[in-house]
Amino acid sequence: MTKSRPAVYAVIMAGGAGTRFWPASRALRPKQLLPLAGASEETLLAATVRRLSPLVPPERVIVVTGEHLAEATAKAVPQVPRAQILCEPAPRNTAPCIAWATATIARRDPEALVAVLPSDHFIANEDELRRVFDHALDAAARGHVTTVGIVPTRPETGYGYIEVGDPLAGGAGAGGGAKSVVRFVEKPSAEKAAELLAGGRHLWNAGMFFFRVGDMTALVERHLPALAAGVAKIDEAARSGDETAAVKAIFPTLPSISIDHGVMEKAAGLAVVPGDFGWNDVGSWQSAWELGQRDEAGNVLAPGAIAIDAKNNLVRALGEPASKKVVALVGVDDLVVVETDDALLVIPRSRAQDVRLVVDALKAAGRTNAI
Amino acid sequence: MTKSRPAVYAVIMAGGAGTRFWPASRALRPKQLLPLAGASEETLLAATVRRLSPLVPPERVIVVTGEHLAEATAKAVPQVPRAQILCEPAPRNTAPCIAWATATIARRDPEALVAVLPSDHFIANEDELRRVFDHALDAAARGHVTTVGIVPTRPETGYGYIEVGDPLAGGAGAGGGAKSVVRFVEKPSAEKAAELLAGGRHLWNAGMFFFRVGDMTALVERHLPALAAGVAKIDEAARSGDETAAVKAIFPTLPSISIDHGVMEKAAGLAVVPGDFGWNDVGSWQSAWELGQRDEAGNVLAPGAIAIDAKNNLVRALGEPASKKVVALVGVDDLVVVETDDALLVIPRSRAQDVRLVVDALKAAGRTNAI
Repeated sequence: MTKSRPAVYAVIMAGGAGTRFWPASRALRPKQLLPLAGASEETLLAATVRRLSPLVPPERVIVVTGEHLAEATAKAVPQVPRAQILCEPAPRNTAPCIAWATATIARRDPEALVAVLPSDHFIANEDELRRVFDHALDAAARGHVTTVGIVPTRPETGYGYIEVGDPLAGGAGAGGGAKSVVRFVEKPSAEKAAELLAGGRHLWNAGMFFFRVGDMTALVERHLPALAAGVAKIDEAARSGDETAAVKAIFPTLPSISIDHGVMEKAAGLAVVPGDFGWNDVGSWQSAWELGQRDEAGNVLAPGAIAIDAKNNLVRALGEPASKKVVALVGVDDLVVVETDDALLVIPRSRAQDVRLVVDALKAAGRTNAI
Repeated sequence: MTKSRPAVYAVIMAGGAGTRFWPASRALRPKQLLPLAGASEETLLAATVRRLSPLVPPERVIVVTGEHLAEATAKAVPQVPRAQILCEPAPRNTAPCIAWATATIARRDPEALVAVLPSDHFIANEDELRRVFDHALDAAARGHVTTVGIVPTRPETGYGYIEVGDPLAGGAGAGGGAKSVVRFVEKPSAEKAAELLAGGRHLWNAGMFFFRVGDMTALVERHLPALAAGVAKIDEAARSGDETAAVKAIFPTLPSISIDHGVMEKAAGLAVVPGDFGWNDVGSWQSAWELGQRDEAGNVLAPGAIAIDAKNNLVRALGEPASKKVVALVGVDDLVVVETDDALLVIPRSRAQDVRLVVDALKAAGRTNAI
């Protein structure tokens, strides 16, 4: 990382709510604040900051979250300076988040390179991730707003895809394997997904973006002028030392739109670097089981749990004190069992997505404490 | 209950330990102290005392339990005078328990009739139970040590049986349907059980005995002289006001033997009254499900529990505060899910008996806190 290029900043988007990990995930403890990857107690957000640190030290990391998550987020990544935890007064999707963070970085360093990253994914091969990010930053430094696309392994209908074009002009090595983006493709049908996978020209869109602050600012000004104007007002207030009030007043009025829809699908000159580093978006308890430390019976167990004639189960005991709870499974297979101080879930792994039915039922019953 | 017969006392045997209801049942909270019958929060012991009260008021009820259970037992049946909760310093099976309690009652009323009853069964038809007990007490008052035998409904191998003979001498009505006992039969093989059921001459032995104090004292003196001698010493000490020390010294040395083996199988002149009052010995979580308040999907749920696409499950949330815990089942059938402050069990109803495997595993791991 000794290249002579502008300083690199990271924007980590950590505003997710999410109900797919109920009862572990809650309004005040969303997915990125849970230790969902493997046996470690590290939260997904903390892992994101840690694995980035050889490339981007914590003092150049911006974390964007919701106001209600400010304390929990600061606690999860104490190495990030508190002033760099930006709190949205209301969720407005990714474009306002990225535009605001970009303006914040531009005030500090108008030449900066920025990596925008999700906070709630798992990465198996961290060295390879950093190698790919390094290539993406090279392409960004040359003026391309660049994304990292995940090499697909199955005809997934839950993600958007990126169609890959020719290598960037400048010859082999110049872009570190970066290629032009032909187009962003929305979540496909099953048939279409199989086609995309077979064609070999599409990558998964994992929401990772790399750019010079000026390039992103220009794209937002062009494609989302109302957003650009609002962020400019916040920026002006920040320069005169009164950002907090301006954010509270202006941020909730910004257009709620994703960076994909608002900018990426419209912009020209985008680049993409293929990434193959054991990416997993940890989409459900099923993913948590896949990523967990399985014993010889295929169980991913809470410490001290007992499994008798039980196979391929996931057990999480997250109540306090977690270590004192004895969880015992006898004669059950392929279940997810998650226990917290105030809730308990039992569901087959194959139905992990249906956790939302529980959250819906709780909402319908007005039991908001449990959500 | 206005007959002119001696005063009736009850001895309720509440020393059970039992692991079949783990994690609800524990060393300090055995089965009889759990609310296992139906939707009510009444413990099995409290239900035993309550349903008996029209026949035997609490001031004539003796509860025998273990020293370590003294407080919890007193709390469960506050209507029973504290001095009538007898605490065994060590478990010695039923014969010493009954002999000691009989001596205790005899000091107060040498003419008393006694009903000895288990503390941990469920009775659906309490009026019928009292009607049957009344007949049993009539037979006892006429000098027969009498048992109530349960009319069998299946070829059960888990209970002992009682072979029924002719009606007692004295003519119809005199014994209120009491008949002579031909013999006590130990737990039979499956084949033998089917034979006993088909023959129609056998009843289940539910451990209920009715007698005059003098008759039981004489039987113990005859068939278990060592026990009789030990209890006589305790009785002597009690008469001089020093029972506690004598019990501590002598009780643990008494022969450990059941009243069935030690007395009933050897005694002549026994009587039996058939009982058909919805008896259930609540032998496992399966029984708790059978006795519970099932909803239209066949689930017996904890208050506030949510079941989605889930059938015929039993859910018990026994932690504190129980009402705050949200238990959610999605897409699972025929499970037992029991949650306490420090343990959680998930097991198919069909394997409810295998709860002991968990207790065995905890014992083997030295995790005595959890047992």
